Amino acid sequence: MSSKNKLALTPLVGDLLANYRQTLEITNIEKKHFPARSQIIFITEELREILFPGYIGRTDLSWSSADYFIGSKLEGLFNHLSKEIARAFAEAECEDYQDKACQETEIFLKKLPAIRTLLEEDVQAAYDGDPAAKSLDEIIFSYPCMVAISIYRLAHELFKQEIPLIPRMMTEYAHSLTGIDIHPGATIGRSFFIDHGTGVVIGETCEIGHQVKIYQGVTLGALSFPKDERGKVIRGTKRHPTIEDEVTIYAGATILGGETTIGRGSVIGGNVWLTHSIPPYSKVIIEEPKLKILKNQKGKL
Amino acid sequence: MSSKNKLALTPLVGDLLANYRQTLEITNIEKKHFPARSQIIFITEELREILFPGYIGRTDLSWSSADYFIGSKLEGLFNHLSKEIARAFAEAECEDYQDKACQETEIFLKKLPAIRTLLEEDVQAAYDGDPAAKSLDEIIFSYPCMVAISIYRLAHELFKQEIPLIPRMMTEYAHSLTGIDIHPGATIGRSFFIDHGTGVVIGETCEIGHQVKIYQGVTLGALSFPKDERGKVIRGTKRHPTIEDEVTIYAGATILGGETTIGRGSVIGGNVWLTHSIPPYSKVIIEEPKLKILKNQKGKL
Amino acid sequence: MSSKNKLALTPLVGDLLANYRQTLEITNIEKKHFPARSQIIFITEELREILFPGYIGRTDLSWSSADYFIGSKLEGLFNHLSKEIARAFAEAECEDYQDKACQETEIFLKKLPAIRTLLEEDVQAAYDGDPAAKSLDEIIFSYPCMVAISIYRLAHELFKQEIPLIPRMMTEYAHSLTGIDIHPGATIGRSFFIDHGTGVVIGETCEIGHQVKIYQGVTLGALSFPKDERGKVIRGTKRHPTIEDEVTIYAGATILGGETTIGRGSVIGGNVWLTHSIPPYSKVIIEEPKLKILKNQKGKL
Repeated sequence: MSSKNKLALTPLVGDLLANYRQTLEITNIEKKHFPARSQIIFITEELREILFPGYIGRTDLSWSSADYFIGSKLEGLFNHLSKEIARAFAEAECEDYQDKACQETEIFLKKLPAIRTLLEEDVQAAYDGDPAAKSLDEIIFSYPCMVAISIYRLAHELFKQEIPLIPRMMTEYAHSLTGIDIHPGATIGRSFFIDHGTGVVIGETCEIGHQVKIYQGVTLGALSFPKDERGKVIRGTKRHPTIEDEVTIYAGATILGGETTIGRGSVIGGNVWLTHSIPPYSKVIIEEPKLKILKNQKGKL
Repeated sequence: MSSKNKLALTPLVGDLLANYRQTLEITNIEKKHFPARSQIIFITEELREILFPGYIGRTDLSWSSADYFIGSKLEGLFNHLSKEIARAFAEAECEDYQDKACQETEIFLKKLPAIRTLLEEDVQAAYDGDPAAKSLDEIIFSYPCMVAISIYRLAHELFKQEIPLIPRMMTEYAHSLTGIDIHPGATIGRSFFIDHGTGVVIGETCEIGHQVKIYQGVTLGALSFPKDERGKVIRGTKRHPTIEDEVTIYAGATILGGETTIGRGSVIGGNVWLTHSIPPYSKVIIEEPKLKILKNQKGKL
Repeated sequence: MSSKNKLALTPLVGDLLANYRQTLEITNIEKKHFPARSQIIFITEELREILFPGYIGRTDLSWSSADYFIGSKLEGLFNHLSKEIARAFAEAECEDYQDKACQETEIFLKKLPAIRTLLEEDVQAAYDGDPAAKSLDEIIFSYPCMVAISIYRLAHELFKQEIPLIPRMMTEYAHSLTGIDIHPGATIGRSFFIDHGTGVVIGETCEIGHQVKIYQGVTLGALSFPKDERGKVIRGTKRHPTIEDEVTIYAGATILGGETTIGRGSVIGGNVWLTHSIPPYSKVIIEEPKLKILKNQKGKL
């Protein structure tokens, strides 16, 4: 490279440093030790390997060595996860954050068997709900809903333990992999199935019952945000709908509002837009919008 | 770490092991040797490098060494892919699975030139269909439809050869990268273009002709699933629509049902919802839903 | 492996090579030295680490060493990015492409402080617009819109400098991570927020003002493509809408056409479909499609 093509580095570094000091809200220098995104992803994948042994990661496990496999995985997870939780607590200025991080990590890891029991029912719900599924194994291997639901179920437990930052980092990792956006604060019952899934949004204060099935592009969202007297949005109220047991919601339907309840056993048709409650065992479909069928001349709308 | 912060590992391992034995449907210990997801992704990327030489992976290829490049790639692919196919067959309890895996791998690799010929037409269709495209190269490099369609065309051939598990693992990898969900069982003709693509769903039994163009959010799906007398969904019937040659389907349209045929040369407008057939050379648009245009007071709906 | 299971490599290599020579449009052998996708992703992540110091990548930065950190990052970026830009220029047969690449890289890197200033406002807009956001940090860490908008703002500057190929490679990387598809040619003002984001499409010639907020599944697209007398699409005209300041567009709305302008301070409701302009301070909602609410017998539509 000729000398004229060398970068004049010093002024550029100076300008950036000056900018770092001006836009401090997005500068984390000597401020906080956040959980590292790469570590959260690593931990999430390790957890998924424990949840689905022999499917994800190593595929040659034997019963005689399974305890070593689990033991070493769990020990590593305890060390890594407690460190990231400590960072999340330290950032939130929690006292005794290191002890608390270890305690919370242990509480969380003890929940893994119960999470697995839930996931077995989710896998079965996917098989029962999708005629394209050839086997339970295919679902565990390749269905994006299994990635999204398993990571949600993990993150939701951390959310209930009030661990800052990490639950949302986990579900946004799942969102990036699958296009399915489940807030870790949502409550979701047993035997949950999402088919295809791209574009699904499930908001923070949703309450979803058992044996619910939803399709791609379904939004369970907020209707509007109450604001306080200074015009700031109020956080923490129930803004998202309640979906009772055995409800099916077809593709592209939008259900909004914290007061909206879809009664048990109902079916919501594709593209339905709902902002009010529906009684149990209802079937809601849009009055089919009138179509104009014309002769196509130019092959273009 | 203080001693009180050590994990009580033994009971936790015991609980998980007990759970593994209870929820056996999602435990693969001493059961099956599945294809490994990481290997399938590696193989898929190697195949894409062979399909688009000099674009993906190494970019400095010369004609004089191209045979070495291809030869070594193909040999590696043969070894890796035949091993994964053998696992998929073994899992399906296929006899002589190792010999059969090698034969099927060779049959598949011989199809690569024909797949490339199809892909050249797909690239041209994208260029012809998108005014934002600056060159064919830009399409090969950056258009998500090229990822989704090239992986679909590979997976569809393996699907036709009745290789278990691997085709769907490949297309779900593409789904994760692009938001485009094409089942490997779908049949898709020449010069196929998907613009933007996020949210597209193309079901297992779709039949799509030549020179078809679809936009983001289009669903070619099932209307409902026939169930047998025990209430179990029946698998394997034609549940998804037929799209004839030279059809264009705009964003957000939903076309459902195995009996539904969109006739040749038709144009389906954005957000159209169709569950019945349309004759050739039709133009179907929704009667524009009436809009209410009000004065916005608070800047909020 | 038995000898019968060895691949007959030579004919296969010959067939592929013959095909490479036939389908030359998708063969890059002894043709061009393109930017490498893996390098563009690496550069994009390095840039994001500089834009959000201490959040992405290393999280233990100190002010006393920040200049070394920035200096070494910038020097590496200059070398890597100028090399890829040179390739992009060489491909476009630009004269003196190496000198020009270094100049353009320096011009680009000097814009980083100004881009950061914009991003600080974007983060604040996300916090103000989403009641589920717990802190600015959570937004920087986990909100997909921050990935999409920060990469768009980088790519847009390269687009304005008329660097070939690289801007679109960057935004398609963001599209793959987030499901948000922003063309690098679009113009977007300050304090921009996209909630959830999956399925959002923002076309090449969009013009978006300040303090605009959009939700998942919003399309700002083209109405139709003018074609020249030979039936080829005409490239480079304004095909996408103009969105003025302080507009909110709810989920699933579609706004099409280069002549369409949404006036300042307007609110566009969910699922609205618009192909004409709207005056300032309007509120546009669809006349709620009539719903049929039936008794659900079979639990199935």
